Amino acid sequence: MLEKITLAHGSGGKASHELIEKLFVASFGSKALVAMEDSAVLQAGRETIAFSTDSFVVDPIFFPGGDIGSLAVHGTVNDLAMRGAKPLYLAVGMIIEEGFSYADLETIVRSLKAGADKAGVEIVTGDTKVVQVGKADKIFINTTGIGLLDEGLDISAKNCRPGDKIIMSGTMADHGATILCQREGLQIQGGFTSDSAPLNHMVSAIIREAGNSIHVLRDPTRGGVGTTLNELALTSEVGIRIREKDLPVRGDVMGACELLGLDPLYLANEGKLLAFVEPGAAESLLAVIQKTEYGENACIIGEVIADHPGQVVLETIIGSARTVDMLHGEPLPRIC
Amino acid sequence: MLEKITLAHGSGGKASHELIEKLFVASFGSKALVAMEDSAVLQAGRETIAFSTDSFVVDPIFFPGGDIGSLAVHGTVNDLAMRGAKPLYLAVGMIIEEGFSYADLETIVRSLKAGADKAGVEIVTGDTKVVQVGKADKIFINTTGIGLLDEGLDISAKNCRPGDKIIMSGTMADHGATILCQREGLQIQGGFTSDSAPLNHMVSAIIREAGNSIHVLRDPTRGGVGTTLNELALTSEVGIRIREKDLPVRGDVMGACELLGLDPLYLANEGKLLAFVEPGAAESLLAVIQKTEYGENACIIGEVIADHPGQVVLETIIGSARTVDMLHGEPLPRIC
Repeated sequence: MLEKITLAHGSGGKASHELIEKLFVASFGSKALVAMEDSAVLQAGRETIAFSTDSFVVDPIFFPGGDIGSLAVHGTVNDLAMRGAKPLYLAVGMIIEEGFSYADLETIVRSLKAGADKAGVEIVTGDTKVVQVGKADKIFINTTGIGLLDEGLDISAKNCRPGDKIIMSGTMADHGATILCQREGLQIQGGFTSDSAPLNHMVSAIIREAGNSIHVLRDPTRGGVGTTLNELALTSEVGIRIREKDLPVRGDVMGACELLGLDPLYLANEGKLLAFVEPGAAESLLAVIQKTEYGENACIIGEVIADHPGQVVLETIIGSARTVDMLHGEPLPRIC
Repeated sequence: MLEKITLAHGSGGKASHELIEKLFVASFGSKALVAMEDSAVLQAGRETIAFSTDSFVVDPIFFPGGDIGSLAVHGTVNDLAMRGAKPLYLAVGMIIEEGFSYADLETIVRSLKAGADKAGVEIVTGDTKVVQVGKADKIFINTTGIGLLDEGLDISAKNCRPGDKIIMSGTMADHGATILCQREGLQIQGGFTSDSAPLNHMVSAIIREAGNSIHVLRDPTRGGVGTTLNELALTSEVGIRIREKDLPVRGDVMGACELLGLDPLYLANEGKLLAFVEPGAAESLLAVIQKTEYGENACIIGEVIADHPGQVVLETIIGSARTVDMLHGEPLPRIC
């Protein structure tokens, strides 16, 4: 019997999933929630909308490549885009610790606005709470977004099909490695930064190219590519095979991961997507992604198979195969 | 020059307003945000929707009449209803302190679900973050909601008109007094409790009765009736006159307020609304409210006047008049 909430329950890995399934899904019982997607797809009168929420508690709040403000915009914009929706509106809820620097708040607000402008969404409503010193850590930001869906699109975590090619839109683990290096006070040699970025324009481009050939889109944030692929294998009841040699990781990020003793497969990305697409459309969609901002390093990392449903298998560089599990064990708190 | 965020910035009073206007509205510049309503009214394709967010940091998290879960549902449902929208969907984002009791989390989740069922809304998506011990205070909950608006309704903070009667749907200050008594460890003699409740069914009933006679709806939460009336007087550029003898306050709540040295006009309500309605429809709308759940103590507390725009005047019991300001000075943190 579980008695206490632990950091692992917020890691995005196995413990998070158990909490969500056993408590939230079991209690709330909503069909949209049960689907375990990045955002809920809902009927609002005659329109189909996507709806997604995320709270950001990243530590540190300023980091190379962004801050908690830009991250909060990108995170929710991307969750909406991963259902094929066009993000329209954001609500921003802030919980601020008494004594927080007004200048820092201004910087974060500017960053929220710049992020929203870049993504083409409007911040339309908000809320601010202040708690006493020591009752929160500087600032937490919730963003919740609404997107509009075109009829006919069906992009969902349950749609992986054997044969699908898996495109990754760029290098892996940049955000997670950046945050952890900052936190540990490690000097980053290669100068890599968080990949935090809005992916909605990239998604629009591939939908225009061949929307019906796209089965699944997912941004591998908390828990990383390894956990995300496991979620998809379970939800779609298929096997997934990826090749180590094709996984895109920057050399300096890999070096940092080795130093930290962490596998880049489990580190968060905040500006990358995984696209599961019909094999015949894979090359043309890859070419489209490579031409978009944030997509130049995109590549095909594997495919969906009918064997061993629910599992992810990695073909290693030396030719052996190993199962890739969901993130468990050591939690990496407050990555986003 | 402001250097630090203070508790007053989260109080819902004057400092909150200045922060919102000078930083958030000035930076984000959205038309919907500028309107300073309880929820934004937006176009989503062919539909008009309401969209509202609120973070809940109430302390204590369990209190007579509710808990942070039910409060979080009612707060957002009511903000949607105050534009005349029918609340449909809620997103729930939780920030939990490591070590938080799983049993308490279960209680709160049950309470979120019961609140949603009672209001007739669906919890469709969520997010959970866990931060280290001492980096948050037990649990914070953000709820963000979507509601659907009927065409033709125009219920807005800018619509107060001279002559409008002001209906208050029940007694004042119950929530604020309950939380403060709990926090101070005061034994509540009369056994009053928080009024936290969903008001959307009450709003539906008055819209069915005479939707076009309703100019403004507002739930006087943080900052209380005094602050809310000031906001409306400013937004609509009208004067507001209320009569002390007509302000509904329970005797035991008034006693607690006197003990605490607080004015019930500035204490939060979480299950009450103020309705500004055409004078000819006031009696029939009042009768409808009195017949709904949570509305039995409704009464008319004053009216809109053309004199002294932007100001709220209280006619005291002894016949004198005094200006009612927005809440400022002593902040009451974490009331909701």
